[in-house]
Amino acid sequence: MTLVGGGPGAVDLLTVRAWRALQSADVVVADRLGPVEILAELPPHVRVVDVGKEPGRHPVPQERINELLVEHALAGAHVVRLKGGDPFVLGRGGEEVLACAAAGVPVEVVPGVTSAVAVPGLAGIPLTHRGVTTGFHVVSGHCAPTPEVSDAQVPRGTHRSDTAGPLDNAALSCVRDGTATLVVLMGVRSLGAIVAQSLAAGADPGTPVAMVENGSTPEQRVTRSRLDEAPEVAAARGVRSPAVVVIGRVAAAGLLEATSERRLAGAGV
Amino acid sequence: MTLVGGGPGAVDLLTVRAWRALQSADVVVADRLGPVEILAELPPHVRVVDVGKEPGRHPVPQERINELLVEHALAGAHVVRLKGGDPFVLGRGGEEVLACAAAGVPVEVVPGVTSAVAVPGLAGIPLTHRGVTTGFHVVSGHCAPTPEVSDAQVPRGTHRSDTAGPLDNAALSCVRDGTATLVVLMGVRSLGAIVAQSLAAGADPGTPVAMVENGSTPEQRVTRSRLDEAPEVAAARGVRSPAVVVIGRVAAAGLLEATSERRLAGAGV
Repeated sequence: MTLVGGGPGAVDLLTVRAWRALQSADVVVADRLGPVEILAELPPHVRVVDVGKEPGRHPVPQERINELLVEHALAGAHVVRLKGGDPFVLGRGGEEVLACAAAGVPVEVVPGVTSAVAVPGLAGIPLTHRGVTTGFHVVSGHCAPTPEVSDAQVPRGTHRSDTAGPLDNAALSCVRDGTATLVVLMGVRSLGAIVAQSLAAGADPGTPVAMVENGSTPEQRVTRSRLDEAPEVAAARGVRSPAVVVIGRVAAAGLLEATSERRLAGAGV
Repeated sequence: MTLVGGGPGAVDLLTVRAWRALQSADVVVADRLGPVEILAELPPHVRVVDVGKEPGRHPVPQERINELLVEHALAGAHVVRLKGGDPFVLGRGGEEVLACAAAGVPVEVVPGVTSAVAVPGLAGIPLTHRGVTTGFHVVSGHCAPTPEVSDAQVPRGTHRSDTAGPLDNAALSCVRDGTATLVVLMGVRSLGAIVAQSLAAGADPGTPVAMVENGSTPEQRVTRSRLDEAPEVAAARGVRSPAVVVIGRVAAAGLLEATSERRLAGAGV
């Protein structure tokens, strides 16, 4: 089985290694996200199994996906599991590797361009920038610990955040201290809680936020706001999931644009 | 100018978009890291400018790189700036975009496979894994704040770590709390300081650490240890820069291997 990271969506952001794996596949098990247009370009004998979620229909459960990968591989097929982004960034790729390992199916991992980095980059937002931040932090708005989780469910040795909300201490520290950029995947629904928690912890209400929808596609849209206004701005502009939310000074509009002196000089020509 | 992320080193981990940009370049400005083998495969008319650091020789300073990009672009060349990994992950890509913007040179950014994610992944280490961590944090061992930095140099509004050392509060919280995986790029030299700071902050001395050298190349080597023994193990094994250091429970040996029951069953066949 080849576990392939397909990148954020644009077909030409597949790696050459991923493209070759897809061309040599017998069966491709694909999600709704990622470079879905490549599926129409595969050789005619390739069987495509769609396990993705679509509006009004539930996705194939992870356990069943694991079974599908193992079944096809044990039947002798070269199975390619095509995932959006990178398979080991909030993609449950590790569970698929484990299912194959338990069945004696060898796995090759092909890393991909992760949406967490590429989607901001394509929108002109560098996750690190000299003099601004020297690190970044990636979390999922879905997976993050929520106030509903009881302490008994928290793994031993882990510390919950001092302030109730979706962010753990590390993510919260990024927003509060400003030393690292915070990237939230699947964070539109939890945006209100993230902002409330950050402000309660002492974050600067003026911290820049950028929300990038449909990154790497022709429908890409960037919405910017201050931290304290982000939920209202997102609602007013109808920002929808999946979007990549970037919180930190690198998300400021115009960070990578020409200086005003230069623009004035250019305007004088 | 096209600012291209070339991935961790293996030529086939370039994206299709990056590959096409390189094929259509007039001038390629390249570092020592990343997919350097591609340079020998470019069309013969492509001029390659090597600005990378090699043993015993200083690299071209960033200011001069910026000038080179602008000069060639203003002379009418299609300039491709080829960087290792992703151009906006600790790569100073933002500075190159700014230099071009100031000179009126348009820039296209081609995101790449970042070593921070891909190198662990190729070593079988998922940065996130269900039931273990729901996020990850990337910092540079070179860029991180050091005890030598005076408080006056710290940007206003940022909080230093409560414990002296290279890690800021967010990175330190990852190691101490175990809720997110910490990835340190260029961290071999500062490993001793990172470990001392983490232990002083209360991190579990048994936290797994993996150090991956030459990731994605045939010379890839993975060294594992406990957190408290990492500097000694690294020294004993001669771990050298550049290496990707992963700290957290996902770095444990065997995380993605078959369960022992299954291995016993297999052994019985």
